[in-house]
Amino acid sequence: MKRVLTFLSDFGSNSPYPAAVKAVAAHITDARFVDITHEIRAHDIQEGAFVLWCVARYYPAGTVHCAVVDPGVGTQRRGLILTSGEQYFVGPDNGLLSAAAQSLGNPYACEITNSPYVRSAMSSTFHGRDVFAPAAAHLANGVPLQEIGFPITDWTRPEYDFQGGRFLKEARELQGRVIYLDRFGNAITNIPAKLVEKHMSFDQELLLRRHGQEVPVRLRRSYGFALHRELCLVFDSHDLLEIAVREGNAQETLGLQLGERVTLRLA
Amino acid sequence: MKRVLTFLSDFGSNSPYPAAVKAVAAHITDARFVDITHEIRAHDIQEGAFVLWCVARYYPAGTVHCAVVDPGVGTQRRGLILTSGEQYFVGPDNGLLSAAAQSLGNPYACEITNSPYVRSAMSSTFHGRDVFAPAAAHLANGVPLQEIGFPITDWTRPEYDFQGGRFLKEARELQGRVIYLDRFGNAITNIPAKLVEKHMSFDQELLLRRHGQEVPVRLRRSYGFALHRELCLVFDSHDLLEIAVREGNAQETLGLQLGERVTLRLA
Amino acid sequence: MKRVLTFLSDFGSNSPYPAAVKAVAAHITDARFVDITHEIRAHDIQEGAFVLWCVARYYPAGTVHCAVVDPGVGTQRRGLILTSGEQYFVGPDNGLLSAAAQSLGNPYACEITNSPYVRSAMSSTFHGRDVFAPAAAHLANGVPLQEIGFPITDWTRPEYDFQGGRFLKEARELQGRVIYLDRFGNAITNIPAKLVEKHMSFDQELLLRRHGQEVPVRLRRSYGFALHRELCLVFDSHDLLEIAVREGNAQETLGLQLGERVTLRLA
Repeated sequence: MKRVLTFLSDFGSNSPYPAAVKAVAAHITDARFVDITHEIRAHDIQEGAFVLWCVARYYPAGTVHCAVVDPGVGTQRRGLILTSGEQYFVGPDNGLLSAAAQSLGNPYACEITNSPYVRSAMSSTFHGRDVFAPAAAHLANGVPLQEIGFPITDWTRPEYDFQGGRFLKEARELQGRVIYLDRFGNAITNIPAKLVEKHMSFDQELLLRRHGQEVPVRLRRSYGFALHRELCLVFDSHDLLEIAVREGNAQETLGLQLGERVTLRLA
Repeated sequence: MKRVLTFLSDFGSNSPYPAAVKAVAAHITDARFVDITHEIRAHDIQEGAFVLWCVARYYPAGTVHCAVVDPGVGTQRRGLILTSGEQYFVGPDNGLLSAAAQSLGNPYACEITNSPYVRSAMSSTFHGRDVFAPAAAHLANGVPLQEIGFPITDWTRPEYDFQGGRFLKEARELQGRVIYLDRFGNAITNIPAKLVEKHMSFDQELLLRRHGQEVPVRLRRSYGFALHRELCLVFDSHDLLEIAVREGNAQETLGLQLGERVTLRLA
Repeated sequence: MKRVLTFLSDFGSNSPYPAAVKAVAAHITDARFVDITHEIRAHDIQEGAFVLWCVARYYPAGTVHCAVVDPGVGTQRRGLILTSGEQYFVGPDNGLLSAAAQSLGNPYACEITNSPYVRSAMSSTFHGRDVFAPAAAHLANGVPLQEIGFPITDWTRPEYDFQGGRFLKEARELQGRVIYLDRFGNAITNIPAKLVEKHMSFDQELLLRRHGQEVPVRLRRSYGFALHRELCLVFDSHDLLEIAVREGNAQETLGLQLGERVTLRLA
């Protein structure tokens, strides 16, 4: 199969920037281009990290991801390449790449240092085009990592805890937070399916607590096992606990906020 | 020419889901990927069916369309492949695929049953990634339909009547409804151009009736034959009657609603 | 490297039109498809021209750009091909293509006249699909320009002055206007970096005048050299003067409008 080169950014699909990035890459490589999204909220590194983390596991070995959510462009923040699970992640060293790379193994890291593999006329505001796109395209062509960068170990590893939900033994509660709201109004939490399965059963009566208030809810095998308009819990497609309303909108129904803490216990 | 594999969904371009679907397909096939859109309104099967119906006729023989607007995921609704006009349509059996497939001929239908051609770790919430993408990618590679699915005849055929406008002999009126509003504010009706041409002429004075009120309007050969800001009728690019305002917005001018009934008669 | 065929339009990514355009091109060519954007504001020829002008310079020799912002479709406006810098620009002769083509050299122009290279069933409302896509795809395949069109010299050259900012000697002021607002709230002006560098220095105190009011501001080497939340000037990625707020939104802070005149002088 063809090598894949993906692009993710907060540039906006209506802006000229994604097309400039791809123009530079098209000079260098015939790899298959896939746009993950250019609609990450402006400067929202965590949302970019989450989307990249969600999808990286499905990509073939050899895939190179060029990801740019880069509020620090033009400062001293470094250009980073992480590699793990035979995939490459290229972008700013600001935490954007780490969760995805770590989900595939123990990443090997390089700072992008070698100018023959970046654009000679480098702007101070657009490293996506001038640094990350050419570096990523050369990697997609099989240029060895060590020719493009210099090994480092102190790259940024934020604690995004995309699977950080946990079981509190004393209280016999699952505790986590909302890490993503999708356009259907489903709220994805950071509570892993495995943890839920260990302590709770399908169709059992549970209580979901938010801001000190509890609402009754059941874990369903899928939306299809819930009643019409039922507030329910399901395992989302990334094996995380999801709060949903069948044929409805959980975000609107409950007023759920990104980042808010949720707690779940047996009724 | 290269085989084409298209993707259509209501996932939202800002979500991780389209990129997960394409990741799975990129493992299997080198076909050309074309995103039709991922901005179908959430759960709006009819809008998805309309967009797919609009574009399918322009695709080359051998094209595979992977389409996912799937409010029933995780229920017993079947996975469907339709083939007609040497194209393939892969998605949920909920009416999404039927109008497009029927527009190219009399479809041959299979339920997706053969697990070697779908992902082994199948989620209950994301068949786009786990079932439809791999099945579509294998079809694009030339795997025979009968290896992937089992023939069925009772697939879902909703009555979307995308060309269902008709001539009422008694009243000598054309009657139809608004089936699509585009971003320019043009309202596309389900009244076929051929029907209009049979009963009305260009530049003739007509009356457009909505909610019991009539407004004068003329059928123009194109926007360019209308006056500046004139409310007019044209034949849209899919040979349907379209209500437009030249260099203006018919939807706003008339307050047009999706689905509303419109009637047209000679003045 | 593979030939590149780009697409730019105001169709909207949620509409069927971009997919119809690409369907037609996929019949003709195996070139790499790149969507620049389909989110140009409806009928905004100048915005389309700006985005195309921004990105064209980064594309490889041989690239063909198929651009459609076409309020005059169905009138007598001509179909145009411009070529310069070994790239091709295909679209309506309404000013959309000129700035991009002129930025790469002195364009050679043809009107699209030769029907074997356009769709035989031509609609009066969708030349993107019926004329521009097939012409562009044939060019990407290496069909000579003279087989598709007839040379003309009177093509539309609007005065968009994307680099038209100037220095007023008497007043010792730089004068220009806001030509693009990006989603980060940065306002890009048409004042070229070179002109600014000639008359002003980094970190020097300057005064930015809008609507008769002056605000103090400094030119920074990049966002990273500004203070947190500082209103500042930087050179954008296309070497134009940009008004920005570090980790903030200049458009909201100042109430900047597209097209508004801005003046800059030494404090």
